[in-house]
Amino acid sequence: MHVVGAGLVGASIGLALTSAGGEVVLHDASPTVATLAADLGAGRLPGPDEPEPVLVVVAAPPDVTSDLVAAALRRHPGAAVTDVASTKAQVVTGVAEAAGPDADRYVGGHPMAGRERHGPMAARGDLFVGRPWVLTPLPTTSPASTALVRELATRLGAAVVELDPTAHDEAVALVSHLPQVAASLVAARLVGAPGPAVGLAGQGLRDVTRIAASDPVLWAQILAGNAGPLAHHLRLLRDDLDAALAALETGSLGGLARLVADGNAGHAVVPGKHGSVPAAYVTVPVLIPDRPGSLAALIGAIGEIGVNVEDLRIEHSPGRQVGVVEVTVVPAARDGLVEALRGRGWSVPD
Amino acid sequence: MHVVGAGLVGASIGLALTSAGGEVVLHDASPTVATLAADLGAGRLPGPDEPEPVLVVVAAPPDVTSDLVAAALRRHPGAAVTDVASTKAQVVTGVAEAAGPDADRYVGGHPMAGRERHGPMAARGDLFVGRPWVLTPLPTTSPASTALVRELATRLGAAVVELDPTAHDEAVALVSHLPQVAASLVAARLVGAPGPAVGLAGQGLRDVTRIAASDPVLWAQILAGNAGPLAHHLRLLRDDLDAALAALETGSLGGLARLVADGNAGHAVVPGKHGSVPAAYVTVPVLIPDRPGSLAALIGAIGEIGVNVEDLRIEHSPGRQVGVVEVTVVPAARDGLVEALRGRGWSVPD
Repeated sequence: MHVVGAGLVGASIGLALTSAGGEVVLHDASPTVATLAADLGAGRLPGPDEPEPVLVVVAAPPDVTSDLVAAALRRHPGAAVTDVASTKAQVVTGVAEAAGPDADRYVGGHPMAGRERHGPMAARGDLFVGRPWVLTPLPTTSPASTALVRELATRLGAAVVELDPTAHDEAVALVSHLPQVAASLVAARLVGAPGPAVGLAGQGLRDVTRIAASDPVLWAQILAGNAGPLAHHLRLLRDDLDAALAALETGSLGGLARLVADGNAGHAVVPGKHGSVPAAYVTVPVLIPDRPGSLAALIGAIGEIGVNVEDLRIEHSPGRQVGVVEVTVVPAARDGLVEALRGRGWSVPD
Repeated sequence: MHVVGAGLVGASIGLALTSAGGEVVLHDASPTVATLAADLGAGRLPGPDEPEPVLVVVAAPPDVTSDLVAAALRRHPGAAVTDVASTKAQVVTGVAEAAGPDADRYVGGHPMAGRERHGPMAARGDLFVGRPWVLTPLPTTSPASTALVRELATRLGAAVVELDPTAHDEAVALVSHLPQVAASLVAARLVGAPGPAVGLAGQGLRDVTRIAASDPVLWAQILAGNAGPLAHHLRLLRDDLDAALAALETGSLGGLARLVADGNAGHAVVPGKHGSVPAAYVTVPVLIPDRPGSLAALIGAIGEIGVNVEDLRIEHSPGRQVGVVEVTVVPAARDGLVEALRGRGWSVPD
């Protein structure tokens, strides 16, 4: 399989496939990015006599996607070609115009997995596990091509959803692009805020603004590529915002309670868990003295106990005598770890 | 100590103090809530001949807080009284009016800790650990009372911040109430959305809307109690929203990129952990083999090099041959750490 574009998504596809024994050939406009992705284990660079691929995944920025898809269709006349762009109607139309009848081997795709970080360094082989992967085949699309892309997505652990390109774009306007704009708008208000104010920020602000760290160049393309459906939702949100302002100005407790209650109702329809620790793991908090060597001693102790650390976060603040280290482990390891750490004198709160 | 109001915050204060050997007497307008909190270990119900408390914490809804504070000041003429309400100017004024000179024993307080769940069942003894706890004493406030409340907050692990009531309210309008309204507005747009659309929801939407699960009755009071500063920020956000809509309608990539870039800038000033601004630290990525012992070896190496680790995150994924550990250190330590790690054979990408 060929992956064209070895950034976050392309390198993650490569990592997942190569670790399952698949063969992945990596292409990128940047030789550094391609080499880095190969070094991380996402595949290999193309050799002089590459056999023809059966599948090409274009994982490039949206503004070059339809051209790269059309080029891949021309270059590999026997291959199915898919892409990963976040909006589909423009890309599908662009490929049809650029590739003519070859477009029958193109299957629009959008793995609904991403991170606020980008580039191959941020790639993970499990990026797609349990995530939706939308395919947007047209009535003219070759069923064999659709089947190949579906097999890829399934193999990477994703849940395949078929939608027509317009329905896809309307859906992501609501569940992806609207929250992105809201997060950016809230975060932008913090620029120039007094230090004491941002010093009071808590988890709520951090959650609401996490995706505000997204790449401006990439996101300008994504938002512009879905302007109509997104503007529709933003106008409705502005109407609600005006109602909230009116409730504030008139001191209407009922209006303010309705704002929050409507949010409750919408929150209730969001599937899945809220929060960032995968349900497959549990977190054990350990108090450590805030001085050099404490963390090393803790990690050493956990290693001696024989538990594999899945993730580890340190929460501390200046002036406090202890920090809290959150050690993430598989659930089966928790009780043993807590007992063994306490037995070694570590403070593990209940 | 007396706690008046045994919900999430009151019961969490009680849990933390009783577990440290303190004595807590619980009051609540609801006998069920008081009994439940006592059963959970947050303190005991009042007996017939209670000695006078030295400190009373009013942890009740904002709309009854100033009355309950004034009542506690009258009832316990030797006690310091504090509260936990999320807005302060109205409460401080209300107490001054209701209690007259007794208000000198009142110290406005706001522990910046909460959860989207409420009630004593959601209480945790570590709710305040590492979180800011704002105190808003006035020039007329008794220093002895302020010292008592400061000691309480410190004992619960919080970082005490003193602000005047107005500065506090302006700060929380920006870092707490504005994100709450934004989360509610985005979540409200999901009501009645087609099933396939919400089925595509990912972590971004979940993060942005997590706090939209907040209690409408409590939050209507909080928002109404801070109407002026909040409306100010909401109007500025609406102006930015109108600019985003204009950029969408005219297809201005520059305007859309600016929206996201402004969000980047705001995101960068949000403290990554309590009491610290991320700009104060830098992150060094290190590749490690994904097997037990690698992390311990890395931490050991960093300890030998003599650098204090401020934070540490592990990025790994099943099947990947290497993981990336992000080591957060003070900027002055970075270059030396990178060089020393490379000298010991560790792979540190540029």
